[in-house]
Amino acid sequence: MVGCRAMLKNIRIVLVETSHPGNIGAVARAMKNMCLSRLCLVAPKRYPSEEAVARASGAQDLLDAAEIFDDLDSALQGCRLVIGTSARERSVAWAVLNPRECGGQVIEEAAVGEVALVFGRENSGLSNEELDRCNLLVHIPTNSDYSSLNLGAAVQLLAYEVYLASLEEADKPLRAPREVASAEMLEGFHTHLAQALEDIGFADPRQSDKLLRRLRALFHRARPDRDEINILRGILSAAQGRKSMRR
Amino acid sequence: MVGCRAMLKNIRIVLVETSHPGNIGAVARAMKNMCLSRLCLVAPKRYPSEEAVARASGAQDLLDAAEIFDDLDSALQGCRLVIGTSARERSVAWAVLNPRECGGQVIEEAAVGEVALVFGRENSGLSNEELDRCNLLVHIPTNSDYSSLNLGAAVQLLAYEVYLASLEEADKPLRAPREVASAEMLEGFHTHLAQALEDIGFADPRQSDKLLRRLRALFHRARPDRDEINILRGILSAAQGRKSMRR
Repeated sequence: MVGCRAMLKNIRIVLVETSHPGNIGAVARAMKNMCLSRLCLVAPKRYPSEEAVARASGAQDLLDAAEIFDDLDSALQGCRLVIGTSARERSVAWAVLNPRECGGQVIEEAAVGEVALVFGRENSGLSNEELDRCNLLVHIPTNSDYSSLNLGAAVQLLAYEVYLASLEEADKPLRAPREVASAEMLEGFHTHLAQALEDIGFADPRQSDKLLRRLRALFHRARPDRDEINILRGILSAAQGRKSMRR
Repeated sequence: MVGCRAMLKNIRIVLVETSHPGNIGAVARAMKNMCLSRLCLVAPKRYPSEEAVARASGAQDLLDAAEIFDDLDSALQGCRLVIGTSARERSVAWAVLNPRECGGQVIEEAAVGEVALVFGRENSGLSNEELDRCNLLVHIPTNSDYSSLNLGAAVQLLAYEVYLASLEEADKPLRAPREVASAEMLEGFHTHLAQALEDIGFADPRQSDKLLRRLRALFHRARPDRDEINILRGILSAAQGRKSMRR
């Protein structure tokens, strides 16, 4: 688990004329989950609100610190990059990013300055005048028969891509591969297995090469570690032990 | 914009003992946005519910078609791949995917069979016994100081990655994945294994839960096919048979 990287503080989420305060709460929670902290509200319809608090769950601190503006331009003060969300494919010659590209670009620019991600009204999105304020647009791909994402969900997806990009930006910590048993240890297991199958009377000698090959393939896929080999051999010994007891 | 690809029909979202019906509605909406349609509810606390309908917005059709089960095993019938969501990093040797890897694997396998993505309770997630049913786990990276994602948000993120992978898959040549045994066949094997270990006198009752979980992890990695399950059960029966011979 990695902590929140410093450049994430330079990213603000801007919500324009949100109607439902529950959505503002959901946005706060989604942001905090993904290490974003600066929430800017442009002329929210109903705010503050109990519903926002309820949906924010443990992200009340983001609501408390939320900044409220009368207009979009005020909320964008000081930003070097403004990205607007668009549900539609537009005819204007705007560059439209996908969410992954958006995450990469936001992180790259947040390393050197302030960045805003702007989300429009629940029903009608951003106006053309508001889109004019954006350097770039981002479009979240969805089912073409049901494309209207909930506001909280849209923020969640973009915040996730931004957060992932911040993790990738960090010096990638090596994810240590699993320990696995050595070739000779695995070989010892397969020899033991063959003997045990004979001892318990399972292996038909005419078929046993084919059978043992299948079992090999299975354990090659599983790639057991040392402990697992020891457990498996313990089981084989227990099964064989019954034989000597019988003698 | 691309329509919903056929393999997405083979993916079911399984919610275990959801407390808040509003979350079920949010999940339905998140699924439909991302072209998923099959919702399976395991013992929901309050359902059906007005709150679910309100939050589902235009995804009422998914709620109408939702299947309700008494237990997880029933909800997983016929699945070739079961992926469980985990909020924690675990010490057991389960393979843990990130959401992007998860999307790719789900789409690859949904091309040839049924796949389940399993989400636990709002407060406590999936139990160890429920995680035992999963071939793989997926973990969504989050702020380590505030990691509890809303259920709808978690489904939204994974559904998004699955949908993106389905769009990418459209450009790839088909590679047929291996045949694998169904969830219930694998479960039958594990039950047989536990009994056999007891019969041959191997399992120490004080340690047997931990032991059986390790063996589960091993066979989940191996992902045996039908024939292999039959071979393994034949071996178990032969080992058990010695006991009855002794009587």
